Amino acid sequence: MKPDWLGDSVKLPDQTIANRALARQSQLTKPPGSLGVLEELAIQLSSLQRSETPAADKVQIAIFAADHGVAAAGVSAFPQEVTVQMIANFSAGGAAISVLAKSLQADLDVIDVGTVVEPGKLPGVISRRAGAGTANLQVKDAMDEAQLVVALNAGREAALRAKERSVDLFIGGDMGIGNTTPAAALGCVLLDADPSQLAGPGTGLDSKGVAHKANVIREALSRYDNLATQPLEALRCLGGFEIAALTGAYISCAQLGIPVLVDGYITTAAALVAVKHQPEIREWLIYSHQSAEPGHQAMLKALDAKPLLNLGMRLGEGSGAATAVPLLRAACTLHNNMATFADAGVAEG
Amino acid sequence: MKPDWLGDSVKLPDQTIANRALARQSQLTKPPGSLGVLEELAIQLSSLQRSETPAADKVQIAIFAADHGVAAAGVSAFPQEVTVQMIANFSAGGAAISVLAKSLQADLDVIDVGTVVEPGKLPGVISRRAGAGTANLQVKDAMDEAQLVVALNAGREAALRAKERSVDLFIGGDMGIGNTTPAAALGCVLLDADPSQLAGPGTGLDSKGVAHKANVIREALSRYDNLATQPLEALRCLGGFEIAALTGAYISCAQLGIPVLVDGYITTAAALVAVKHQPEIREWLIYSHQSAEPGHQAMLKALDAKPLLNLGMRLGEGSGAATAVPLLRAACTLHNNMATFADAGVAEG
Repeated sequence: MKPDWLGDSVKLPDQTIANRALARQSQLTKPPGSLGVLEELAIQLSSLQRSETPAADKVQIAIFAADHGVAAAGVSAFPQEVTVQMIANFSAGGAAISVLAKSLQADLDVIDVGTVVEPGKLPGVISRRAGAGTANLQVKDAMDEAQLVVALNAGREAALRAKERSVDLFIGGDMGIGNTTPAAALGCVLLDADPSQLAGPGTGLDSKGVAHKANVIREALSRYDNLATQPLEALRCLGGFEIAALTGAYISCAQLGIPVLVDGYITTAAALVAVKHQPEIREWLIYSHQSAEPGHQAMLKALDAKPLLNLGMRLGEGSGAATAVPLLRAACTLHNNMATFADAGVAEG
Repeated sequence: MKPDWLGDSVKLPDQTIANRALARQSQLTKPPGSLGVLEELAIQLSSLQRSETPAADKVQIAIFAADHGVAAAGVSAFPQEVTVQMIANFSAGGAAISVLAKSLQADLDVIDVGTVVEPGKLPGVISRRAGAGTANLQVKDAMDEAQLVVALNAGREAALRAKERSVDLFIGGDMGIGNTTPAAALGCVLLDADPSQLAGPGTGLDSKGVAHKANVIREALSRYDNLATQPLEALRCLGGFEIAALTGAYISCAQLGIPVLVDGYITTAAALVAVKHQPEIREWLIYSHQSAEPGHQAMLKALDAKPLLNLGMRLGEGSGAATAVPLLRAACTLHNNMATFADAGVAEG
């Protein structure tokens, strides 16, 4: 039984406020359009937040961590124990996302959705375990229905916490050794792509490793028919607990009216599932960066997404999204605080 | 007589510190290279600042404003009085760069290098006038030797102020109605390009206006031979006071050991002159963004520059560079504050 909230409707952006924001942009002391994407971001955030003073000040970052049975197939350059070691590193403040969250003064929650070994009690780490890692998708369904629900609900809860904290922006991050394999598998199903198009080096596979990864995905896909039209079923069969949690979080944010800044490859796979589930969700998703993982480009294209940054990043954890937050903040402060031609007594072109 | 300081030597980046920074990056808890350009930025700033803890906290922004005789040729969508009106807007805090500087807690100086009408005394505005605007480059040399020296020295002084304030980073900005024409003219000479390749819409010309602008530049270029090998002479004949000041500032920053974040089209033209004058300056220049102005790409290519952002911005004022500052700050805080594999007890791949 899927949770009821999956059927809730998605909030609509406010077109009247978008038009007002557009009109304001044309009155600010600059040639029209000369702030490029920063203008578009301010208008989009205005209409999503239903506010004439859009903001990206209060940011909620939720990292979902889980293990993947498919790691047994040798699809990652790192050993599986790194997932739980990194949870401890997130908690202790030493990981990239911890450092970035601190510099952004963002809230950072870490949610254990199911590592092989339990991390134990750690500050800032929430336990919402769907199991001790997924099953190996190479040979069977990654999770059962009950596990999918636990993971989706873990994402739902993170969005509800963000709502309660009245944040301006939600960022989901991922941690899970082996998780570029389920992400690529989901991409293959939902984009009707061949595994050779979407499998990539992840944290550092060589070309032989990448070819092996594509074969593992091909084997998995051979077990199923018609997953393309059943995004949540594809998520259950081929996904990961953290990917399912991210999907639940994105769906919930769009329903609750919280703009989302999507990170990289793994989170975009979750976004793809969410948008296939409910196309109206698309309006709520802002894409932060183009990952160095080659399959990311195909997913972004399918989502008609133009990411803000292209810096060759491929770390996950929400790190690309966190790096892009200052661009949203710049867009908002320019929109809210620049003088108009009339205010400043500047002649218009 | 050119000022003596033009012949001073450029500081060299410290290769030992660069190697140490590279080694540290490989020990931080992330797959090697997974922070992409952010890793390169941290290493570059480390070697330029000769510091194991690179920083982009203290930022000096200097906007140079001046008028252009070539505005009489009808090469801009905005009237010339906007230059001096925008100086007042910078001073009052209403311009894009004022808003961004405030949010970055950066120092902002505005230097009047020669507008047609004097702006009068305004807070934060420094008067270093080389004249009441340049001559019309369509028909004669834009400035004489004495004016070039005043403008170059205005840039030198800005770099010296930055040095005195011990800033981590220098940003130069430009304001000057009509200044994409001298920038394109300099690009044509220094890249051996045709005006049709480098003339663009600027603040909003239509295609007819762009073609006219190219013709104005072509007429100017027809008066000279051999400017390509004399970058400072090209600057005198075809440049603007603010472009000359930016050139002086960039040369001086490289001599004084201050990393520079280059803004967009106009500042890149100044960077091109500076690098042609002294090729070692190149190491000190970080390129913030790809401008929407089409000729920018050709200039960046000639400088082998990979800009950090591509957001369709084309405002000038240093606004693109200011927007990119948080990327440098992220690079530094990650480099300085992430845990190593050994610190965090995380297994290496």
